[in-house]
Amino acid sequence: SGLVHVKNPHLDSMEEDVLYHLDLGTKTHNLPAMFGDIKFVCVGGSPNRMRAFAQFMHKELGLTGDGEDLADICAGTDRYAMYRAGPVLSISHGMGIPSISIMLHELIKLLHHAKCRDVTIIRIGTSGGLGIEAGSVVITDTAVDSSFRPQFEQVVLDDVVVRSTELDKDLAEELLACSKEIPDFPTLIGHTMCTYDFYEGKGRLDGALCSFSSEKKLEYLKRAYDAGVRNIEMESTAFAALCGLCGLKGESSRSRFRVL
Amino acid sequence: SGLVHVKNPHLDSMEEDVLYHLDLGTKTHNLPAMFGDIKFVCVGGSPNRMRAFAQFMHKELGLTGDGEDLADICAGTDRYAMYRAGPVLSISHGMGIPSISIMLHELIKLLHHAKCRDVTIIRIGTSGGLGIEAGSVVITDTAVDSSFRPQFEQVVLDDVVVRSTELDKDLAEELLACSKEIPDFPTLIGHTMCTYDFYEGKGRLDGALCSFSSEKKLEYLKRAYDAGVRNIEMESTAFAALCGLCGLKGESSRSRFRVL
Repeated sequence: SGLVHVKNPHLDSMEEDVLYHLDLGTKTHNLPAMFGDIKFVCVGGSPNRMRAFAQFMHKELGLTGDGEDLADICAGTDRYAMYRAGPVLSISHGMGIPSISIMLHELIKLLHHAKCRDVTIIRIGTSGGLGIEAGSVVITDTAVDSSFRPQFEQVVLDDVVVRSTELDKDLAEELLACSKEIPDFPTLIGHTMCTYDFYEGKGRLDGALCSFSSEKKLEYLKRAYDAGVRNIEMESTAFAALCGLCGLKGESSRSRFRVL
Repeated sequence: SGLVHVKNPHLDSMEEDVLYHLDLGTKTHNLPAMFGDIKFVCVGGSPNRMRAFAQFMHKELGLTGDGEDLADICAGTDRYAMYRAGPVLSISHGMGIPSISIMLHELIKLLHHAKCRDVTIIRIGTSGGLGIEAGSVVITDTAVDSSFRPQFEQVVLDDVVVRSTELDKDLAEELLACSKEIPDFPTLIGHTMCTYDFYEGKGRLDGALCSFSSEKKLEYLKRAYDAGVRNIEMESTAFAALCGLCGLKGESSRSRFRVL
């Protein structure tokens, strides 16, 4: 049917669904009227960048009105920012798995309540590249954890549930084909490693704490490269797992902030 | 000596330390002049709330100048917001362990470079209470994970390092004593449980995914209560572990946004 799935039997019996961190709700807003025609959702960490992206899309799509003055749909909260340009929704998610997870739970319910169909979601942003040219765009085929496993461990109460982190292969190929139409735009498909920590987790030597040598770091990054990892960031496994479970065609492509 | 410790032998050999996510650095800013006299750091999730808190402190401390018009010291980035009121620094950290960890790594290096002494750090904000009166303030003695263990598992490269999450007991007692001077201010000391997820991790029934029954949720929360947990949030274990390792006297006290 192309609809977004929620997998929560409790939702049907709730009189109202408040999407707290988006400052939206089923009783306070007409979600089908506001969002029913959305076909693409682009998400990224920084609110300013996601506003800039929406402005860019507004211009690219040739929409009428002032693209410079787009309103933040989530203006009532400072947790996330959300803008729309035609059928494209642009939302910030902050940094790290817990932050993107909160946003995605509420976004998925939003798309469900709005009865959106055939939605494609793409995560865009910067990342650390591994053995690739600076400025390259990495389109993720599979997100992997810090041990290079294609899985996301979700704690549910005090159980650990393991979820798949594969992304949509057709969408990845489609994005790669788009990149070929643009000159000087090095783009590749590869695995993306997702860490819980920017400093100790990513092997950086410049945090407040660092217990490993430069050699140990390089040995780890070499192993990651050999396992197919081409970039490192902090949200892709949760993104892939949640989108996959809820029937959202998802892709994560990251580098310098450039739009495919 | 009261100085903040960094535990990273690589830092000394770095010509410049760029605190990326705070938009500050050792070559671009005179950190001792800007921050050398800081004695208290208060951190919380939301940038707007941390501005409001700095304005409140400005007024409480009887400082001259317009407390309504405090400048965001991190205005060059939208990752975090930072304000100061006299010897008090007020910083936002976003939501979840990865987000607060990035900020704390850079804050600890900031305090180190600025040669601050005897700094107390307090995390303030809202949380879900467990078996306590709504509006109560919980002062954390120990942060625990979703299995009620007083520890934080930090992934360093692909190893897991287990760190202590005890907080400063004297500071907790001092804060509790302060609360007694204010009428109608229910305050208690207890354990704080830290989860990686707002919906499935905290036992909420209103996420996009929910695989457990209301009974299973209550049984889990009952076990948490019996283990001494009095509130649930998403940052305390990483906060306790990082502050503890770096010699910052730390405390986490949360409820409705009210200041002790």
